[in-house]
Amino acid sequence: MAFSFPAMTAAIWQAGETVTGNDNLYLWIALAIGILGLLAALFFARSVLGSDAGTSEMRRISDAIRQGAEAFMKRQYSTIAMIAVVLAVVLYIGYRLSPFTAPFANKVVISFLIGAACSALSGQTGMWVSIRANIRTASAARTSLGKALQLALHGGAVTGLVVVGLSLLGVGVLFLAFGGLKNPQQTPYELVGFGFGASLVALFAQLGGGIYTKAADVGADLVGKVEAGIPEDDPRNPAVIADLVGDNVGDCAGRGADIFESTAAENVGAMILGAALYPVFGLKGILFPLIVQAINLVASIVGVSMVHSGETEDPMHALNRGYYVTSVLALAGFAAAIYFMLGARWWLLGCGICGIVTSFLFVRITEYYTETRFRPVRAIAQASTTGPATNIIQGLAVGMETPALPVIVISAALLLSYYFGTKGLEDVTTVSTYAKGIYGTAIATMGMLSSAAYILAMDTFGPITDNAGGIIEMSNQPDSVREKTDKLDAAGNTTKALTKGYAIGSASLAAFLLFSAYLATIHDIVHQRVAAAGGTLPDTWSFSNVNLASVPVFVGALLGAMLTYLFSSMAIKAVGRAAQTVIQDVHEQFRDNPGIMQGTSLPDYGRCVRIVTTAALKEMVLPGVLAVSMPLVVGLIFRHFGGEFNPTALAEGPLIGGLPINLSGAEAVAALLMVGTISGILLAMLMNNGGGAWDNAKKYIETGAHGGKRSEAHKAAVVGDTVGDPFKDTAGPSLHVLIKLLATVTLVLAPLFL
Amino acid sequence: MAFSFPAMTAAIWQAGETVTGNDNLYLWIALAIGILGLLAALFFARSVLGSDAGTSEMRRISDAIRQGAEAFMKRQYSTIAMIAVVLAVVLYIGYRLSPFTAPFANKVVISFLIGAACSALSGQTGMWVSIRANIRTASAARTSLGKALQLALHGGAVTGLVVVGLSLLGVGVLFLAFGGLKNPQQTPYELVGFGFGASLVALFAQLGGGIYTKAADVGADLVGKVEAGIPEDDPRNPAVIADLVGDNVGDCAGRGADIFESTAAENVGAMILGAALYPVFGLKGILFPLIVQAINLVASIVGVSMVHSGETEDPMHALNRGYYVTSVLALAGFAAAIYFMLGARWWLLGCGICGIVTSFLFVRITEYYTETRFRPVRAIAQASTTGPATNIIQGLAVGMETPALPVIVISAALLLSYYFGTKGLEDVTTVSTYAKGIYGTAIATMGMLSSAAYILAMDTFGPITDNAGGIIEMSNQPDSVREKTDKLDAAGNTTKALTKGYAIGSASLAAFLLFSAYLATIHDIVHQRVAAAGGTLPDTWSFSNVNLASVPVFVGALLGAMLTYLFSSMAIKAVGRAAQTVIQDVHEQFRDNPGIMQGTSLPDYGRCVRIVTTAALKEMVLPGVLAVSMPLVVGLIFRHFGGEFNPTALAEGPLIGGLPINLSGAEAVAALLMVGTISGILLAMLMNNGGGAWDNAKKYIETGAHGGKRSEAHKAAVVGDTVGDPFKDTAGPSLHVLIKLLATVTLVLAPLFL
Repeated sequence: MAFSFPAMTAAIWQAGETVTGNDNLYLWIALAIGILGLLAALFFARSVLGSDAGTSEMRRISDAIRQGAEAFMKRQYSTIAMIAVVLAVVLYIGYRLSPFTAPFANKVVISFLIGAACSALSGQTGMWVSIRANIRTASAARTSLGKALQLALHGGAVTGLVVVGLSLLGVGVLFLAFGGLKNPQQTPYELVGFGFGASLVALFAQLGGGIYTKAADVGADLVGKVEAGIPEDDPRNPAVIADLVGDNVGDCAGRGADIFESTAAENVGAMILGAALYPVFGLKGILFPLIVQAINLVASIVGVSMVHSGETEDPMHALNRGYYVTSVLALAGFAAAIYFMLGARWWLLGCGICGIVTSFLFVRITEYYTETRFRPVRAIAQASTTGPATNIIQGLAVGMETPALPVIVISAALLLSYYFGTKGLEDVTTVSTYAKGIYGTAIATMGMLSSAAYILAMDTFGPITDNAGGIIEMSNQPDSVREKTDKLDAAGNTTKALTKGYAIGSASLAAFLLFSAYLATIHDIVHQRVAAAGGTLPDTWSFSNVNLASVPVFVGALLGAMLTYLFSSMAIKAVGRAAQTVIQDVHEQFRDNPGIMQGTSLPDYGRCVRIVTTAALKEMVLPGVLAVSMPLVVGLIFRHFGGEFNPTALAEGPLIGGLPINLSGAEAVAALLMVGTISGILLAMLMNNGGGAWDNAKKYIETGAHGGKRSEAHKAAVVGDTVGDPFKDTAGPSLHVLIKLLATVTLVLAPLFL
Repeated sequence: MAFSFPAMTAAIWQAGETVTGNDNLYLWIALAIGILGLLAALFFARSVLGSDAGTSEMRRISDAIRQGAEAFMKRQYSTIAMIAVVLAVVLYIGYRLSPFTAPFANKVVISFLIGAACSALSGQTGMWVSIRANIRTASAARTSLGKALQLALHGGAVTGLVVVGLSLLGVGVLFLAFGGLKNPQQTPYELVGFGFGASLVALFAQLGGGIYTKAADVGADLVGKVEAGIPEDDPRNPAVIADLVGDNVGDCAGRGADIFESTAAENVGAMILGAALYPVFGLKGILFPLIVQAINLVASIVGVSMVHSGETEDPMHALNRGYYVTSVLALAGFAAAIYFMLGARWWLLGCGICGIVTSFLFVRITEYYTETRFRPVRAIAQASTTGPATNIIQGLAVGMETPALPVIVISAALLLSYYFGTKGLEDVTTVSTYAKGIYGTAIATMGMLSSAAYILAMDTFGPITDNAGGIIEMSNQPDSVREKTDKLDAAGNTTKALTKGYAIGSASLAAFLLFSAYLATIHDIVHQRVAAAGGTLPDTWSFSNVNLASVPVFVGALLGAMLTYLFSSMAIKAVGRAAQTVIQDVHEQFRDNPGIMQGTSLPDYGRCVRIVTTAALKEMVLPGVLAVSMPLVVGLIFRHFGGEFNPTALAEGPLIGGLPINLSGAEAVAALLMVGTISGILLAMLMNNGGGAWDNAKKYIETGAHGGKRSEAHKAAVVGDTVGDPFKDTAGPSLHVLIKLLATVTLVLAPLFL
């Protein structure tokens, strides 16, 4: 880690004037708003819990979902806790081994554990409310669509506010506890463990939940709809509760952990870059990301409160209104923060606008590729008329096309925000142009995440309404009620798809920020080593030579890209294996208890839930361990054996401060991180958008196109939808998390690669 | 281009002693063996043409295939010629615009046109023989399996020998004509146009042929097997001849162009690196790659001649025997060449062995993933029992798993051959360790390609036997004959799959070699510019800083990876659109002429051939133009607008030889090339191996597993097979070619990026 900041500043960024003043106030404001955010979450939770909880028939179903979800979460987080403790011990030992890192072992391990705990806590809390909001939404739908919409959104808002609030409080309190107000330039480097802890929990939460949800879904469909010929959500299907549980643990807990990780990693990374600008902005530059998160909370609370809908309005209109309110407020807050904290440098507001526009464009592009009114979904529906093969071919072709526009948007956003960053800080002479530009890209990332809490509320809205629909279906409510929940469900499907676009967009922008933080960290470690050996680091040296022409770097890049494919393959196969256990159990239940199909006796829902829980948790371990261990193994191997291959590490290469320092490990890992990120972004877009397009092509045909339900085209479209399921709900979202995990794990492990 | 070699040597590689002696002899030997190779091809062609050409019924079918293939090739190469001429003009103007490059405009354009012409000529010749070998193989199969096998292999050998022979002669004669014997260090740089010409033709040949073959195949299947319920290769299907033509123009001409490009690009790249080692090996180091190709020709001629098979033996055994003979001979020749030309540095033989072992492992890994006796194909077959969706999911999961082992093999091969290179040249003090290592990886690439002619003969064996089977089927021969051609056809399918593994392996290894050549070229151009402006290039400066942390480089990398996805998407969609034209035509023929289905009148095969020809040629243009123009556009944009973003190009960055030189364009293109290559390799493996596995899962079920033909599992497996078709025969192989095209186009355009 970088614990000798002034020297580092001198080396990379050319130290200069420092700014003084009582800027501590900003930290207190951020912490206070963080607490306010949690209080608002409590308020929304109480308003949800105070609503009518439906008939006893509905409660029976809801209780089964709740128990299943809670049982899964409990076992899942026990498993994750064990993995986290093992990793904490490994981290501690790894840090203890070298005299350079030993003094920081405690702080890294503590921040790691707190990051993991906060992530777990926010996941648990959000889930706790969601599985109680579903029945209340269902109950409200019996009388009012508007009321049901509000309840579902308020339930979702709990997740959104808790995630962002805990992320803000976690980073803020650790900053305070680690002495950030006394030693502001050094402390951000000590927080990297927090990001890693959050990532680790996010990876396993998303993987485990993603495998669970799709195993239950595919299993229930194959044995219910296909074999037994009973409709979706039919109470005779023993896997039906497992399926409804899956909506919660996969979509809701998974995406919450994903966004928690994004904000945590972004906060820490942006604070590290802010520390580099200490000569310009002082403490304010470091606290800026926390204030942006505080603005996010306030804007989102207002946005959620503004959502009201009439009985006949499309629910998406109401949700979008809230989103626009949140965005405008966030932008205004952003401008105020730039005025007060960054010296009214309006070019930097341009960076923030870049981020906001990027998130808007990502959402629109996702819409274009996944909504029924545009060409791609129509083309898949059309291709379904010639059978499942052409449906699949067209879907994959659409999936492979999807990265093109987002890549151009991200490229433009990076270049523009870099440029605006250099313009905004043009008059500053004590900081390099490169540092200015990189700070611009960091501000763009903050801009993009400045409405995260609202986005997450909309996202969690999805599984709540999905569950509400299931409860209505299973408790045999009249069709008029079902129509209302169907409307909500459709809106929920849209928000889920859009959030995935948002999540991958933020992952792409944040990747660059985190990569810069990694390079800064390596630079600082080299500086320490050289200083400890009595040498001095030349002013001109900087660790920015991740040279793709060097063999270990190229190999690291290849391995990084390969990791994303292998990880996806494992995740998809895990769904298949876990689904097999569901199918087997349902077969056994049908065989042992013929009364189930006759409707005379109830299936054992719990047994199915337990079986898929066990299977999903078993299956999540291997891909998760692969993701964590691959950067470590590559870094260590090249650290020990890479010297021979690296031109800069050999006697004839330049010595660093008079010492031959082997950078092979650090460079190979940098390439693994960067090219793994690029490959992961593209693969995730392929899978998310391809899966979403298949899903909606099926829905489009169900509205009557190409022969409608029960036509050959529909059968073909069902095949595409089933293929898309593990793509868009397991492997794709897990890849978002993997990308950020790669960034945080390399940040934490950086000292071990040198 | 690099036209001032001595200065460059001084700068990068530290010039030293030069070696003299009459080494010109090696060039004459290589050229003589190149001519010998063409004579051997003539001999094999005559032996094929002299065989019995079957019954008049068979000849009628064969003639229809021949006419269709010739018509397609003629129109295809006319289109390619137009594109090549346009590009030649653009290249000429581009080179003329700058005083630095103007003197070389003629040589670049001439070598470009000759490369394109040689590639086209080798494609045409191979095809000419293949479409005559098919009927003779079919005729021979009526009496003897062994004779049929030999004829098909001899037909394939013509393609193999012509491709390698023309590639060797083209490079060798240009080297001679451009004054290589007088100025050996400079001339290799002037040959880059040859590689680009070969790549351009290869891209369009593979794309056009790949689209044609799968459009005809999918179209014929959908309308014949699925709709009309008639078997494959039934003469009543108007698209059946188009389908058989497709086997030739796609598999045979496409792969020939692919391997021509590989050997041409590898020859030129290795000669550039050999020029860098001029102080050590003199002319011999530059001519070494040509001698290796000569060895390849001799070993392959012997290998092909050794193939004899009994009547009951598995044809693969006989083909493998020939392959082993070729490999052993190539290895022996390699050792001799190292003894005579590279001063008996046996570590360098280790590099060559690395390449040979890599090609062996790639072929074995491809076997594992695509043959019925191993887990992956079995798992797909098993998944077919639960329907098409699980078949597709499992197939995609297998496809995504396939890059893992090859990436590890390639990584090991690069690291080991680099290490062996440094050991082999350990005593040399005038060359940097980096240059030694890179030369080691170049020798590994040569080792891998040292049996290319035999591999290509085996590959072309595939479409010849496929066609022979079709002719036997359509001319109603007895079942005993059909059994023989089925055996040959099965062997042909295996060799086609293995060759794809080989082609992607060689593309992966060669990529590194070509990337190094690009960096050396940029370095030399910078040297010229600095010298022309009166500055001097510092000895320590080298262009090896393709820094992923710089925004334009990261954007270039993102765009390169995105290109491979967009290109694949376009190729796959092109197949779909072209297939629609086939389906439409067949529908019209059935409607207008009811006698076709009753077997009383013949369909108009030619009309279908013409229609798919037109469609395929139209569809190949857009993806091809995208591939060529993207590096150009990225390079030019960042050259003009990138200065702001690049730390090294700004006033505060280091000046190069006292001048601010903007490297943004060159660096962004380097990243596009490298990360595009990595992404392309992985995507190609996914598509080739996934497609092959689906194909064989279907075949496995057809042998009786999981209910055999006409079972539900078989129906599901047919869906997977159809999805795999454009993967493995259009997009995947086109990606191999794209990767190498990116390397050659950046080499040729390099001077325009500065």
